[in-house]
Amino acid sequence: MCTGRIVYPQFYNISFECAEEHNPSETETHVLKIGVIGGGQLARMMMPAAINLALDVRVLAETPGSPAEIGASAVGDYRDLDTVLTFARDVDVITFDHEHVPQPVLAALVATGVRVHPGPQALLYAQDKLLMRAKLSELGLPTPEWAEVRSAAELQVFLDAHGGAGVLKTPRGGYDGKGVRVVRSSAEATDWFTAVAESGDTGSLLVEELVDFTRELALLGARRPGGESAYWPVVETIQRYGVCAEVLAPAPNSDGAVAAEAERIARALADGLGITGVFAVELFETTDGRVLVNEMAMRPHNSGHWTQDGSITSQFEQHLRAVADLPLGATTPRAPITVMANILGGPLEGTLGDRYPQVMAEFPDAKIHNYNKAPRPGRKVGHINLTGADLESVRERARAIESRFQG
Amino acid sequence: MCTGRIVYPQFYNISFECAEEHNPSETETHVLKIGVIGGGQLARMMMPAAINLALDVRVLAETPGSPAEIGASAVGDYRDLDTVLTFARDVDVITFDHEHVPQPVLAALVATGVRVHPGPQALLYAQDKLLMRAKLSELGLPTPEWAEVRSAAELQVFLDAHGGAGVLKTPRGGYDGKGVRVVRSSAEATDWFTAVAESGDTGSLLVEELVDFTRELALLGARRPGGESAYWPVVETIQRYGVCAEVLAPAPNSDGAVAAEAERIARALADGLGITGVFAVELFETTDGRVLVNEMAMRPHNSGHWTQDGSITSQFEQHLRAVADLPLGATTPRAPITVMANILGGPLEGTLGDRYPQVMAEFPDAKIHNYNKAPRPGRKVGHINLTGADLESVRERARAIESRFQG
Repeated sequence: MCTGRIVYPQFYNISFECAEEHNPSETETHVLKIGVIGGGQLARMMMPAAINLALDVRVLAETPGSPAEIGASAVGDYRDLDTVLTFARDVDVITFDHEHVPQPVLAALVATGVRVHPGPQALLYAQDKLLMRAKLSELGLPTPEWAEVRSAAELQVFLDAHGGAGVLKTPRGGYDGKGVRVVRSSAEATDWFTAVAESGDTGSLLVEELVDFTRELALLGARRPGGESAYWPVVETIQRYGVCAEVLAPAPNSDGAVAAEAERIARALADGLGITGVFAVELFETTDGRVLVNEMAMRPHNSGHWTQDGSITSQFEQHLRAVADLPLGATTPRAPITVMANILGGPLEGTLGDRYPQVMAEFPDAKIHNYNKAPRPGRKVGHINLTGADLESVRERARAIESRFQG
Repeated sequence: MCTGRIVYPQFYNISFECAEEHNPSETETHVLKIGVIGGGQLARMMMPAAINLALDVRVLAETPGSPAEIGASAVGDYRDLDTVLTFARDVDVITFDHEHVPQPVLAALVATGVRVHPGPQALLYAQDKLLMRAKLSELGLPTPEWAEVRSAAELQVFLDAHGGAGVLKTPRGGYDGKGVRVVRSSAEATDWFTAVAESGDTGSLLVEELVDFTRELALLGARRPGGESAYWPVVETIQRYGVCAEVLAPAPNSDGAVAAEAERIARALADGLGITGVFAVELFETTDGRVLVNEMAMRPHNSGHWTQDGSITSQFEQHLRAVADLPLGATTPRAPITVMANILGGPLEGTLGDRYPQVMAEFPDAKIHNYNKAPRPGRKVGHINLTGADLESVRERARAIESRFQG
């Protein structure tokens, strides 16, 4: 039995007891057993890399029939301490399919002696956009202007100082455009202020200036516990209805300065936050040629799916290498251009597989990644990667495939 | 209950009863459930493709802890009719990790209505080198001169007519150089004649002329049930101690005529035998510029492992597409040169994973495929693929990696 107390900045003041000490298997083998919390498509897509390298990867899935079912050795709630500690008992490293594991659960995991990558202190910033903004400013990294606002009056002050508009964000729980709203008056935020006040959090919202950007970029990297890191070329991400629709790798017409600045920011963030594993920094390229940090993810990311077929090392293999503290793989592209297009559940009935005969016959070079999820409208159910030498023709073909699948 | 009787040429005269009719799931979904008989590394390497495409692939493995354990839904003996029929009940298509399923078991499978790819009639030729030689001659395809010999006297006649030497082969059960022997006198074959006489087979051996070849080539292809087929570029295979050591893709300095002839032969064989799935034809390139058929495999093959990282479509994805009767994928290479090097269990102790820190640090672009097998000396336990533009430097690096793993 062990007890402990961990104090995190601002929100957490955690006491815990843990039932059993962790019993790592390192004495038996140098290759670690890796436990992934969360059974979504990111965990699913780690499995091919795990099979190639014969890494022992186990998944704690939320439900039976999850996308990562093939790797699932347990099913349970990632918010439940006993479930997570039991799952962790037989692995050497814990990593994640998502960033939502509560800090008290993370703290208890660390206390058992299991390695946790990324660690709780790093994940904290991925879990809270206000903490992240404060850290970015502390690190001197370029961001949109922002403020923590606790009331409609404070919000109105910010809007008045920034051309009458801003992007309002809930600090926690947002994804794929959820928890993000463009506001032109503080009256548009009343419901959110009420909600955060009732949530038991600090009651604050994050507001950012509405950036005049020409396009969105993303920089994907990986970092080992000792600090070794590797970066893929900067990519352009294209959103539709607040969801990533396409990724162009590398970002077309990105001059050396923009690419270098994107990598400088990613490196500073990774080192500054002590990230371990794969992470992605979403960036704005502004009309006046600056690069600003928009969001950050501390896990394999949609903007990195192109690496599965377009890079020597995929982000999923790299993530497993990083969390197992193995040397990182080459991030060299395999082709001049790779285009990734997401497939959402659309108007067409049936599963993606129902369209295989048509799509495969028409596009024999399309690499299809099917998450095995029920195709509800708007839900990400898969993606395709297509490589080539001419951006416009590759992109046109990728969109055609997307439309065959989505209807 | 059903009963039946199937007569195969020469060896088989099969009666069977099957307990239950097959109940395919096609009405529910267009994507088929695929059952793989055999849990070796070939079945293992089908799993990443199955995960990407969300194909439901199940494996009947020989033992627990087999290389394909992650896909194994059953463990049992592939020679046992009940085991195989039970496994087949829940799938729509049966395919194979190896060619050794007995014809009576195959016949019973066909009788249940499950699709079997490749089918028993095609597999028969992969199971028997004498039948294959006869078929090759019937199809008018170029082979080394050969004869079926039933006694030392018959063998001596052949040797005398072919420069006093020949390659003697047991018609059944050979692989990786086993069941193959170069003989210069019929006295060297006495033990094998005794063994085949006692085996209950025809008592024959196959003898072939000792071909004066400059190198060995292999041509990999895939064929759908309806006849659509696709071929990868011809590759050079390099054997050491009778086992494939290296594959160079595409075969260096292969002029258009040799490549075209290799593909012509493969196409004629695939159509002539009615093969379904991936198959490989091993070839000799002779000093006088001819291409002769050496052996054939009706399954994904060691000479095609380079496709996992060197081709738009890997042989494992292609095999699943072909047996599920889906359109075939592009066989375009991803790089000017891909070199595959096998890793055998060697003098070094421990597992391949024990050498990951060293190998990954030194060769960040090596794609490692680890079969998760205990590394007994001489046993194939994995392979690596390496891509590049300059053959000699890629090959040198591939050999260096092989030696780091093998010792």
